[in-house]
Amino acid sequence: MGKAHSNAWRNVASFFDVPAFEQKVLVGRDATQVAEAAAKYGWAESATDWRSVLERDDIDIVDICAPGWMHAEIAIAALEAGKHVLVEKPLANTLAEAEAMTDAAATARSKGMQSMIGFNYRRVPALALARELIAEGRLGTVRHIRAAYLQDWLSDAQSPMTWRLRKETAGSGALGDIASHAIDQIQYLTGQTILETSGVLKTFIAQRPGPNGTEDVTVDDAAWATLWLTGDMGGSVEASRVATGQKNSLRIEVYGTDGALTFDLESLNELNFLDATAPVREQGFRRILVNEPEHPYLEAWWPQGHIIGWEHTFTHQIRDFLIAIDTGQAPSPSFEDGLQVQRVLAAVEASANNKSTITAVADPAPASEGA
Amino acid sequence: MGKAHSNAWRNVASFFDVPAFEQKVLVGRDATQVAEAAAKYGWAESATDWRSVLERDDIDIVDICAPGWMHAEIAIAALEAGKHVLVEKPLANTLAEAEAMTDAAATARSKGMQSMIGFNYRRVPALALARELIAEGRLGTVRHIRAAYLQDWLSDAQSPMTWRLRKETAGSGALGDIASHAIDQIQYLTGQTILETSGVLKTFIAQRPGPNGTEDVTVDDAAWATLWLTGDMGGSVEASRVATGQKNSLRIEVYGTDGALTFDLESLNELNFLDATAPVREQGFRRILVNEPEHPYLEAWWPQGHIIGWEHTFTHQIRDFLIAIDTGQAPSPSFEDGLQVQRVLAAVEASANNKSTITAVADPAPASEGA
Amino acid sequence: MGKAHSNAWRNVASFFDVPAFEQKVLVGRDATQVAEAAAKYGWAESATDWRSVLERDDIDIVDICAPGWMHAEIAIAALEAGKHVLVEKPLANTLAEAEAMTDAAATARSKGMQSMIGFNYRRVPALALARELIAEGRLGTVRHIRAAYLQDWLSDAQSPMTWRLRKETAGSGALGDIASHAIDQIQYLTGQTILETSGVLKTFIAQRPGPNGTEDVTVDDAAWATLWLTGDMGGSVEASRVATGQKNSLRIEVYGTDGALTFDLESLNELNFLDATAPVREQGFRRILVNEPEHPYLEAWWPQGHIIGWEHTFTHQIRDFLIAIDTGQAPSPSFEDGLQVQRVLAAVEASANNKSTITAVADPAPASEGA
Amino acid sequence: MGKAHSNAWRNVASFFDVPAFEQKVLVGRDATQVAEAAAKYGWAESATDWRSVLERDDIDIVDICAPGWMHAEIAIAALEAGKHVLVEKPLANTLAEAEAMTDAAATARSKGMQSMIGFNYRRVPALALARELIAEGRLGTVRHIRAAYLQDWLSDAQSPMTWRLRKETAGSGALGDIASHAIDQIQYLTGQTILETSGVLKTFIAQRPGPNGTEDVTVDDAAWATLWLTGDMGGSVEASRVATGQKNSLRIEVYGTDGALTFDLESLNELNFLDATAPVREQGFRRILVNEPEHPYLEAWWPQGHIIGWEHTFTHQIRDFLIAIDTGQAPSPSFEDGLQVQRVLAAVEASANNKSTITAVADPAPASEGA
Repeated sequence: MGKAHSNAWRNVASFFDVPAFEQKVLVGRDATQVAEAAAKYGWAESATDWRSVLERDDIDIVDICAPGWMHAEIAIAALEAGKHVLVEKPLANTLAEAEAMTDAAATARSKGMQSMIGFNYRRVPALALARELIAEGRLGTVRHIRAAYLQDWLSDAQSPMTWRLRKETAGSGALGDIASHAIDQIQYLTGQTILETSGVLKTFIAQRPGPNGTEDVTVDDAAWATLWLTGDMGGSVEASRVATGQKNSLRIEVYGTDGALTFDLESLNELNFLDATAPVREQGFRRILVNEPEHPYLEAWWPQGHIIGWEHTFTHQIRDFLIAIDTGQAPSPSFEDGLQVQRVLAAVEASANNKSTITAVADPAPASEGA
Repeated sequence: MGKAHSNAWRNVASFFDVPAFEQKVLVGRDATQVAEAAAKYGWAESATDWRSVLERDDIDIVDICAPGWMHAEIAIAALEAGKHVLVEKPLANTLAEAEAMTDAAATARSKGMQSMIGFNYRRVPALALARELIAEGRLGTVRHIRAAYLQDWLSDAQSPMTWRLRKETAGSGALGDIASHAIDQIQYLTGQTILETSGVLKTFIAQRPGPNGTEDVTVDDAAWATLWLTGDMGGSVEASRVATGQKNSLRIEVYGTDGALTFDLESLNELNFLDATAPVREQGFRRILVNEPEHPYLEAWWPQGHIIGWEHTFTHQIRDFLIAIDTGQAPSPSFEDGLQVQRVLAAVEASANNKSTITAVADPAPASEGA
Repeated sequence: MGKAHSNAWRNVASFFDVPAFEQKVLVGRDATQVAEAAAKYGWAESATDWRSVLERDDIDIVDICAPGWMHAEIAIAALEAGKHVLVEKPLANTLAEAEAMTDAAATARSKGMQSMIGFNYRRVPALALARELIAEGRLGTVRHIRAAYLQDWLSDAQSPMTWRLRKETAGSGALGDIASHAIDQIQYLTGQTILETSGVLKTFIAQRPGPNGTEDVTVDDAAWATLWLTGDMGGSVEASRVATGQKNSLRIEVYGTDGALTFDLESLNELNFLDATAPVREQGFRRILVNEPEHPYLEAWWPQGHIIGWEHTFTHQIRDFLIAIDTGQAPSPSFEDGLQVQRVLAAVEASANNKSTITAVADPAPASEGA
Repeated sequence: MGKAHSNAWRNVASFFDVPAFEQKVLVGRDATQVAEAAAKYGWAESATDWRSVLERDDIDIVDICAPGWMHAEIAIAALEAGKHVLVEKPLANTLAEAEAMTDAAATARSKGMQSMIGFNYRRVPALALARELIAEGRLGTVRHIRAAYLQDWLSDAQSPMTWRLRKETAGSGALGDIASHAIDQIQYLTGQTILETSGVLKTFIAQRPGPNGTEDVTVDDAAWATLWLTGDMGGSVEASRVATGQKNSLRIEVYGTDGALTFDLESLNELNFLDATAPVREQGFRRILVNEPEHPYLEAWWPQGHIIGWEHTFTHQIRDFLIAIDTGQAPSPSFEDGLQVQRVLAAVEASANNKSTITAVADPAPASEGA
C-alpha cells in the first residue's frame, strides 16, 4: 500500500493540474528500511516517529497506510494537529474507533481540515462512469444489485498463518478486507444507503501452519450477505479468498428498469452497459473501453485504447484529495462513508452470528446414482 | 415445453442409437388445438382425456409437461397403470405431493417401471463434462460454489399478472422456477447434498395489471440463499427475473483446491476450466468449446465447432430415458432428486419467512455528497 | 451434409408456417446404406439411381448434397426435368460447369422452376440481422471488411490423404471449402460485388500418408486475399485448416463511417454492434444475443436466451426455399451468386499463381539475440 | 511519446533494481514549453539545442523521441559522441538513413556504446511470456501467424490533414506507424526472419481538410500483407486507422503443431494459450492473466490480478536498457532489428506499387435481389 500511495504522490503532478506540493517524509518502524524506501519511492526524508512528524509546521497532509488498528490514533492526532488526513480503508478495526475518527474529522472539517478514506475503487474510471450513468438516470430505477469480490490467495491450505487470519488483529477476513470495497461500491454507485442485511460467514480452512505449530484461523475465508437499501433496492454481496483462479475479481452488476451495468476489476478499463430503452432488436451489453478523453480522469492519460493500470486509482485519489484541499470542498468518500461501511460489516457479522438464520433441509437425501 | 419435448421425441432416433418407439398420442385440453399441435409436432394421434390414454395397452411411456399442480395426479396414475414416466420440473407444487410421487415411483421401480424428472440442464454437454471433471478429482476438494440464474422477463412493471405470479398456482416465483435448476446443478455437479440454507426472497414489483384491475404479486421476483452441503462445501444461489439484459443466464462457478469451473447457459456449448495444478505461469481459465466427439453426447452431432442449441438438452434427456428403460437401470435425476430439490426450496422459503434472519444496520447514514 | 439437410426437412414444418410437403426419396450410392439412412432421417423411400427419381412426377424438389463434381450434371438434369433445385455450395468445381448451371437455372426460372445455392450462413440469424443493420444504413458508408475462416482439422501432419486434398477432386483446399463462405458473406452483407483481388495460397504440409504410401497434397492449407468491391470498399479474407485450436471460427468484421459489426460462428447466436453515432462516452461493441422474437427467424424458436444450434441455418434455408417456390419469387442466394463467388475464387487462384506478386525482402537479417 | 518515456525514466527505479541514474535534460524546440515539460515530467533541466547537450560529459544516455525524419541525424551524432542511444520506432523514414544508423550503432557497440530501438510492445509481459512459451517449444513447430493492428482515429473523413498523412513527412501511413509493431512482433515471437511479402495499400479517404483548403492524403489508411518467414512459416499482417470502434487493437495469433497463442493489446494483461498436447476433451484457449510474480517483469509490480497499464511497456524498456548498459550486453531490439522491419515495410510498399499483383474478377455480377 505504501508503494502504491507513494507512486501516486510521485506521479500525480505529471499528469494532473494539481496544487504544488512536496513529497516530504516517509514514516516507518525500521529506520534503515524506511530510509531505503523513502529514497526508492521519491520521499525527501524518512522518520520513525510519526508523532514528531505531526508536530512539524512544514507538514500539511498526512497519508496513513499503517495497519487498521493504528488508524484511529494517528488520524485523530493528525486532525488535531491541523493536518489534512487521508486514511486507507478500512477506517478502523472497531466501530468505536471509527466513530471517534468520524467525530474528529467533523470537528477538523469545521476548521478547514479535510479528510478522506481510501476506497480507491471509486476512482476506477469505469466505475466513476458507472456512477455518472446511474446518476443521470440511464438505468431508470435501480432495483437489483450484485457484487462479488473473489480472490484465491488462501486456496492453498498450507499457506501459513498471518495476522490477517486472526480476529484480534484483522477484525474480520474476506468480509472486512474485500467485501468492504464491494459494499462501498454498492452505496457509491447507487447513491443509496444500506439499511438491513442477512449474512453468513465461513472459514473453509480452520487451521493453518504457524511458526510454532498449527494455529486456528479465527476470521472468515468467505462471506455472503443480502442487502436492502433505501430506494427499495436489494441485492447481494459475496467475498471469497479461496475462489481458485480468481485473482482480483471485483464484479459488480446493477440492474434497473431502463438499463444495466456490469464490471470486473480484472478488466478495469472496461464497463459493460445495456440500454434497455433501445429497440429490443439491437439491445445488448456494450463493452465500453473507458479510455477516451470524454471519460472520467482519462483526459490526463494516454491515447485511446492505451489502457491504464490499477495503481492509477490511487493517482486519481490523490488528485481529488489535493483539489478538495485547495478548494475547501469536503472530499468523498468521507470518514462518515467509511463509518457507514463498517456499520454494514458489523451488521453482517451480527447476522452471521445469529444461528437462527440457518434452516435445515428436512431429510436431505444423498444424490442418486442412476444412469 | 410441449414443443421442446416433442422436438426431442421427433429427432432423438435420427441422432442416437435408441430402442425403437413411436410418437403416439399428444394430450391437451382443447381438441382442435391439440390435434393441430399433434400434426405439427409429429404425433400420430391426439386426445383430451389423459385418463383414457393411460388405459391403453399400446402406451408404454408418459411424458408429463402439464403445469406443476397436475403432476402428482397424472404421474401417480401413470405409474400405477404400469407406464414409465418422465415429468417436467418442478416435481410438484407442494412437498406432500412430491413425497407421494416419490413413493409411487419407488413402488413402480420395483416392478420395472422407470421414472425421471426433467432437470434437462444435466444434459447440457458442458455441464455433463463439468460433472465428469469434478468426479475425476480434477478440481481436488470442492469448497466454494456459486450459482445464479438471471432473467429479465419481469423487468417491465407493466408486464401483466399471470398464474406464474400467484402463490396458489405457481408455488413460488424465481425460486421454484429457475433457482431450482441451479440448486439441482449444485448437487448434481458436486455429488453432494444440501443440508442447510439461509435464504431471502424479494418482490420488487408488488402489483401488476390484471384483466380486472391491479393485482398483488404473491411470489418472489428474486431469491437469494446460502447453502451448506455434505463434504464441507458451501456456496450461494441467486435467482432473478428482473435482471435487465440477462436473458437466460444460468451461471455456475465451482472452486476446488486443485481447479475451478465456470459456465453460463447463454454460451451453453462452452465450459471454462482452470487447472490449478499446472505451473502458475501458465494457469488460466480455458474456454473448452464442448463440441468434440470426445465430449458427452457430441459424437452424435455435427463436426467440431458446429454448435448445438438449447433444445438438445431435451433430446439427450429422452435418449438417456429410453436407454434406461431398455436396460432396466434407474435413470437420473430420479423423483428422489426432484424431492430433494423441493426440500431445499422449502427450507429457503422457511428461512426467508423467518424475520430474525434480518439485521438492521445501526444508524445508516445517507451517502455523502462530497467532491 | 445429408444429415443436416435431412434434419432441416424433417423439422421445418414443426417450427415454421410452410407449404405442405412430403420427405419422399433419399438417393445414395449404396442401396443398403441409403435405405438405413432414409429410415433414420425421415425419408419415405430410398433409391440409388438419381436419374430415375428425376423422372418421377411426384417429385417436385431436388436437394443436391453430392460432391461438387456431380453438381452440374444432376442440377441441370433436374432443372430440365422441371424440378426446383437446391444445391450445396460450392456451385461446381469449375467455372465452366458453374456457368452451364447458371444458364440452366435462368432458363428454368423463366418457366417457374426455382433454384438456390446452399450458402447456409446467410441464414444465421445474427448474420441476417447484420445485413439488415447494414442495409438500413446503421454503419453509414462501409469501407473496411475483414473475414477469416479458421479451422484446425488438418493441423496434424499425420492426418491422412483424402479426396479433399487433391486438386482434381476438390478443386482447391481451404480456399473453395471455407473461404468461399466468407467471400459470399462479404458480398451478402454489404450488397456489393467483388471486382479485384490479390491472393496467396500456401500448403504447409506438402505430403500426407495415403493408403499406398506418402502422397502429395495438391491443394492449399491456407489462403489469403485482399478484395476490392464496388462502393469503394476494401478488405481481406483469410482461411486456414491448420489454425490449431480454432474449430469453426468464421469471423467477420465490417467497419463503416457510422458503426461496425463483428461476428464469430463459434458464437453463432451473437452479433457485436457498435453505433458510432452515440456519444463517445458510451460507445462500445454491444453483444446482441440474437435470440429475441424481433430477430430474423427467431419468432419460431424458443424463449429468449435459449440459443439455437448450427443445424438450424439449414432449417431456415429450407423454409425460405419452400416459401420462394410457393410465392414464385426467386430465392437468394441464386446460382448467379454462386457463380460470382466462384469467379472470385478463380481470380484469387490466378493471382496466387502469378509469381510477380511476391516481393523479396532485401538482405533479410536474422533476429538479434540481444539481452 | 515524450510523456510516456519521461514517465518510464521517472518511475523505473521505484520498481526495478537498476543502476543509479539522473533525469538530466529534456530537449525541445520551444524554450518555454520544454522548460514547463521538464518541470512536469521530472527532468532537472531543459534545453533547445540537442547538439550542445551531446557535447556534455555528464550525459551518458540519449533517448530520442523526435519525429522519424530527425532520428538518423541525432542518433548518429549521439553515438559518435559516445552516448548510449535509445530511439523510438520507426528507426528512420528511409532505408538509407536506417542503414547509416545501423552502421553507426555497430561501430559504437564495438566501443561499448549500446543502442536500442523502442519497439516497446516487446516489453508487454503477455508478449514476453508468449515468446518464452514459443521458444520453449510449447507450440511445437509454428506455421501460421496472423497479426492485425486496428485503430479508428481516421474514420472521420472530416478529421483534418496533418503531417502524418503526407508521404514526405510520414514515410507511410498505417503501414509504418502501426503495422511496423505487428511485423516486429511476428519476428520477435517466432525468432524467425521475414523473407518475402505480397502487399496492398489503400487510402479510403483521399482528401482531407487542411488549413488552406482540401489536401490530398498521400499515405495509406490501411495496409495488408502476406508474409513468408524462415522456418517455413507464413502469415498475414493487416493495419487500419479506419476500423471504427477499434481503439488500439493489436491482435496477434500464432498457430503451431502443438499449441496456439492469441493476444489483443486492448487487454494487454492477458494472453490466451492453447495446449494441443492436452487431451482433446479438455483443450481450450486459456486466458492467462499475466499478473503473477512468475511472469516477465511482474515481480516488481502489484499483487496478482492488479493489472498494469500500457505505459509500463516503456518502464520495462528503460529497465532492460539500463541493465544492458550496465552489463555491456547488447540490448534487443537492436538497430539491426529496426532496419530489418524497415526492409519489410519497403518490400510491402514495393509489392503494393506493383500493379500486376491485382487480378480482376471476370464478369463480376451485381448481388441478386431475390427473396
